[in-house]
Amino acid sequence: KMTDFNALAVQFTDFYYNTFDTDRSQLTALYRDHSMLSFEGAQIQGTSAIVQKLVSLPFARVKHRISTRDAQPSSPSSGGVLVMVTGELQIDDETTTQRYSQVFHLVPEGGSYYVFNDVFRLNYME
Amino acid sequence: KMTDFNALAVQFTDFYYNTFDTDRSQLTALYRDHSMLSFEGAQIQGTSAIVQKLVSLPFARVKHRISTRDAQPSSPSSGGVLVMVTGELQIDDETTTQRYSQVFHLVPEGGSYYVFNDVFRLNYME
Repeated sequence: KMTDFNALAVQFTDFYYNTFDTDRSQLTALYRDHSMLSFEGAQIQGTSAIVQKLVSLPFARVKHRISTRDAQPSSPSSGGVLVMVTGELQIDDETTTQRYSQVFHLVPEGGSYYVFNDVFRLNYME
Repeated sequence: KMTDFNALAVQFTDFYYNTFDTDRSQLTALYRDHSMLSFEGAQIQGTSAIVQKLVSLPFARVKHRISTRDAQPSSPSSGGVLVMVTGELQIDDETTTQRYSQVFHLVPEGGSYYVFNDVFRLNYME
């Protein structure tokens, strides 16, 4: 049902960015060993490599703010959900924010969901 | 193979935006009746409703320019491919461009692919 996947998108993204902004090493629970992350063009696979990448990003503090989130079922039957987020993030003591876009493909597993696909891009002005 | 889905992403997005910018009514061939489009938050399903939405957008001419494209297999086995694009578009005689983000979920069918999921958002500055 449409309400279900939209509600899941809100619940998941709230949890994801709250966890990211509090202690991003805790994101381990959301990935699996076949999960993929494309981060600013770098292609990374597997829970430990993905979380290592996120933990090693060169800032101590980050705060995400979501502007839009869109959700759709990713197939007629699999139960997967595609979520696209646009938002902005603030790093450390910087006074300006950076805009970003991120896509998650959430796959059901045992009554919950994990992240199979994760694509992150900053939206630079050119 | 990684080269395959990256090559598909380039080939598909080149074709999609060239078609959009030339005659967007021709995008009919890329959608199916269970395909979904989220366009600036509006949720639309089915080939004819999707193409009607795209054709009715309030501009005569548009030119998309891709900045980044990222691709990942959307499952270990289905053959689907997720593509995220960031770029900018120019409408009619406007001298400024607008940045956008778009996600396509491409599903294999008879040696080619169609668009099952399509999510489009402009990236407004706030």
